[in-house]
Amino acid sequence: MSKNENSMSATGSTETVNRVDARAIWQEAIDKARLREASFSTLSSDELQSLYGPEDVDIDYDRDLGYPGQFPFTRGVHPSMYRGRLWTMRQFAGFGSAAQTNERFKFLLEHGQTGLSTAFDFPTLMGYDSDDEHSLGEVGQVGVAISSLDDMSTLFDGIPMGEVSTSMTINGPAPIMLAFYIAAAERQGVDRSELRGTIQNDILKEYQAQHAWLVAPEPALRMITDMMSYCADHVPHWNTISISGYHIREAGSTAAQELAFTLANGMEYVRRGVAAGMDVDSFAPRLSFFFDSHLDFFEEICKFRAARRIWARKLRDQFGAKDPRSWMVRFHTQTAGVSLTAQQPENNIVRTAFEALAAVLGGTQSLHTNSMDETLSLPTEKAVKIALRTQQIIAEETEVAHVTDPLAGSYFIEAQTNRLEQEAEAYFEEIESRGGVVPAIESGFFQKEIHLSAVKYQRQLESGEKHVVGINCYVEDDEGPSIDIHRIDAAVEEEQHARLKDLRSRRDPVGVERELAAVRAACSDGGNLLERFIAAAHADCTLGEISQVLREEFGHFKEPSIL
Amino acid sequence: MSKNENSMSATGSTETVNRVDARAIWQEAIDKARLREASFSTLSSDELQSLYGPEDVDIDYDRDLGYPGQFPFTRGVHPSMYRGRLWTMRQFAGFGSAAQTNERFKFLLEHGQTGLSTAFDFPTLMGYDSDDEHSLGEVGQVGVAISSLDDMSTLFDGIPMGEVSTSMTINGPAPIMLAFYIAAAERQGVDRSELRGTIQNDILKEYQAQHAWLVAPEPALRMITDMMSYCADHVPHWNTISISGYHIREAGSTAAQELAFTLANGMEYVRRGVAAGMDVDSFAPRLSFFFDSHLDFFEEICKFRAARRIWARKLRDQFGAKDPRSWMVRFHTQTAGVSLTAQQPENNIVRTAFEALAAVLGGTQSLHTNSMDETLSLPTEKAVKIALRTQQIIAEETEVAHVTDPLAGSYFIEAQTNRLEQEAEAYFEEIESRGGVVPAIESGFFQKEIHLSAVKYQRQLESGEKHVVGINCYVEDDEGPSIDIHRIDAAVEEEQHARLKDLRSRRDPVGVERELAAVRAACSDGGNLLERFIAAAHADCTLGEISQVLREEFGHFKEPSIL
Repeated sequence: MSKNENSMSATGSTETVNRVDARAIWQEAIDKARLREASFSTLSSDELQSLYGPEDVDIDYDRDLGYPGQFPFTRGVHPSMYRGRLWTMRQFAGFGSAAQTNERFKFLLEHGQTGLSTAFDFPTLMGYDSDDEHSLGEVGQVGVAISSLDDMSTLFDGIPMGEVSTSMTINGPAPIMLAFYIAAAERQGVDRSELRGTIQNDILKEYQAQHAWLVAPEPALRMITDMMSYCADHVPHWNTISISGYHIREAGSTAAQELAFTLANGMEYVRRGVAAGMDVDSFAPRLSFFFDSHLDFFEEICKFRAARRIWARKLRDQFGAKDPRSWMVRFHTQTAGVSLTAQQPENNIVRTAFEALAAVLGGTQSLHTNSMDETLSLPTEKAVKIALRTQQIIAEETEVAHVTDPLAGSYFIEAQTNRLEQEAEAYFEEIESRGGVVPAIESGFFQKEIHLSAVKYQRQLESGEKHVVGINCYVEDDEGPSIDIHRIDAAVEEEQHARLKDLRSRRDPVGVERELAAVRAACSDGGNLLERFIAAAHADCTLGEISQVLREEFGHFKEPSIL
Repeated sequence: MSKNENSMSATGSTETVNRVDARAIWQEAIDKARLREASFSTLSSDELQSLYGPEDVDIDYDRDLGYPGQFPFTRGVHPSMYRGRLWTMRQFAGFGSAAQTNERFKFLLEHGQTGLSTAFDFPTLMGYDSDDEHSLGEVGQVGVAISSLDDMSTLFDGIPMGEVSTSMTINGPAPIMLAFYIAAAERQGVDRSELRGTIQNDILKEYQAQHAWLVAPEPALRMITDMMSYCADHVPHWNTISISGYHIREAGSTAAQELAFTLANGMEYVRRGVAAGMDVDSFAPRLSFFFDSHLDFFEEICKFRAARRIWARKLRDQFGAKDPRSWMVRFHTQTAGVSLTAQQPENNIVRTAFEALAAVLGGTQSLHTNSMDETLSLPTEKAVKIALRTQQIIAEETEVAHVTDPLAGSYFIEAQTNRLEQEAEAYFEEIESRGGVVPAIESGFFQKEIHLSAVKYQRQLESGEKHVVGINCYVEDDEGPSIDIHRIDAAVEEEQHARLKDLRSRRDPVGVERELAAVRAACSDGGNLLERFIAAAHADCTLGEISQVLREEFGHFKEPSIL
């Protein structure tokens, strides 16, 4: 075809131009066009085409998409999705004492939040009591301090534990914290079988990204299979693990790494459950997921869609699960904390809004929207309310929740969903070639991959290849934070010390010794540890005391060097 | 197919389920599902399906979509879209005196805005000088007061008019204001041929929705053809009309009405130009559009796509335009003022963010993002900066600008784009059956259609069928505005009076009389009015004086009753 014919067709003055010619004309125009000086890649550095058309995507609708509620669940896990039920609006909250957080919980429920999500302080996350020497200066700082059943009871005082759905973000000591929760419910007269919620309990990603473990991987995994087994029988509505990509992503991974490592960890838990003799369909339906929603709007939507399809295929075809609920990725999402800036904090309202919308368009079951001030402090009531309102505006005003998987069929969306699935598959092979998830942790594989991605992004920011408003473009003179800041009262730590001292003085020391000994025995005799932790909780054993038994029995994890 | 087979297939335990069966299974699940009590319609009350699949959309890619920069431009007017150039970030601004607004213009340019957009006060919009009795109490209140060439020169003091692209939102007296602009540029030493920008000058929608006209439709249209003709010869980079759906939508229309009425008005301008003897390709490339971006995220994106396809088809096939630039809808977008609430004003940051994203995904050329406080006052610097940052975050951080028309191919998006085109076509027929746009204005057709839609939405809000956060859900006790408010200094009016008095005392009264007489003569002898207005501007005739001549010569418009 001559140049002249091309340009005649480009004017559209003839209707006879065919697809191949039209694309060629477009391509020629693009090749000649002066483009901006910018990187046209995703946030995760995957190059994007300028345009996606029917010829750029290979999908078989029935094989790759199907209908919502049907294998492979690309379009969503429920047939009616948000027409049936909106996602749960669940703001992660916790600070200071159990009583202070209890007040914030009630504030959120009064303003329309539909589920609770608990943030614990560092000592609690590491399995130390508030009065431990490791806890000094950290009590109640970045979450609530919970050292005992009494604290947990205070945290849920006046909140009907049989009705509310609760999420608890804790990993190393997760089985102990669930035991406190079950025991607190029983104090309220609520049977464990009625409890609904999720405990994060995803220890594998702690070794990969987050660093809050109690013991080495193998005993940690044994505690998890104990929980899966116990909950399958006694706490049937509880999600026993929330397999979490969030922290992997926040540590600097790409979207594909978040997707691949999270699902690889999920498959590892399934393998462990099966190896412990459980039927995969007895526990897999209670595995849930937790993803980041970062700022690359479309890449994130595609990540969520790819996660559903990959997991469905793996569980059905590789693990032989028969129950469709075992094939479903149900997931909580948190908007990306790392995307927020301390500079010009109101801009974070905008970032969080886009991230939240991506999560909803990706079909999340539950959502936390970060508050604009979370890079500066724990959120103020005002900031957390704006974050919650962001979700409510999506639900009530944008009309996006009426149509399930609204972007399905988009050439770009489907091409990128395929691309993410392929990148994840390549990682699964790599992990297998390294002997599986635990050996790959022990050799530092995940840690190094994440580290390299984080470094790459940092360099892109420094070179100006990637931009963040207020950081390396549209920077303003620092005027200090222009918003109110939430500060934790230093008295919290002393008060928590006093409460623990009081507890230790009035509890039955014989019961404490007996239950701690029972925990110790179960570590080696294979008794179900969760059952022992519940008994220990009722006997007023503290988090730190139980954790100490586990450390002594199971030993520490020595981190591999990745340098 | 028996019920049993259905449910076996639903579990996915067989891979042989075909498309028709899979859809039937999904449909059965949906029919049985318990849905939320909610209206699943668009903001414009169009019912939505719960799901869109390949069988729900009838598109022929080559006929209906094509490639960006090619007919029918559904996927965008430029081959490289935002890879070539981002949309112009153009915040509508104006308040107080010309000097005050000049200061805000410079503030916006310093913070990364890439074009100017001028808001005028009510007296200016209605063609009255600041010292007219009609202007009392309104001078500088909702926009800048511009009564003369001197004011216009002050407005652009220190801003290089040959480089900046400027938008002016004014209609009845638009030709006079453009004359001031051209004259001010000439004072700066900038030739009219170098000027780039847009004047709204869309008088038809004033009669339909906005109510700021100077004279009756026919003479108003004559002034517009004078402008189109003059600018085609002398101001070739100026967009002579910005055919505006914004005010139609803000007055309460649906998305389809905004689309249909705006394009019908556009076609009327084209007819007038052709009837005045111009070649359609001599002026159609300088027509631009201005749409609202409301909160129904997907409906808005589809509206923008449909607008491009409809206009291209009409201009090529109905008006016989040969120049592809005549077929292109290039448009400015403003986020929906009516979607904002005085309550909990920070929520408006979120609404505006979604509306802005929809405009970008819809391929806008230029964008104004409303500030969170615009329901309370003119925006403060802080509020307008957050609104501008919203655009910058979309451009720099969300990575959505890398791929042109990213949603193309989505079953839902394409089905809704088709639906909007069909609704618009039905309106075009209706308007034609009423004798065209001007007769339909004179009989109140548009006004009544818009009114009925506004009333319907109001009822939906009152009944709770539609929700707005802070209005009929998640309402909080009124604590008064929690943000700072911008207040206009009352001294502005007096100062403006003094400036006009001074101007009238120092100008050459003979020149004033001569130029006003020349305007009067051109009204009846068919001379080009814009040319006369420029001469009058240079002679320091005021806006009110020129407008008064037009009112006397052309007569008033009597509004039809629509009740």
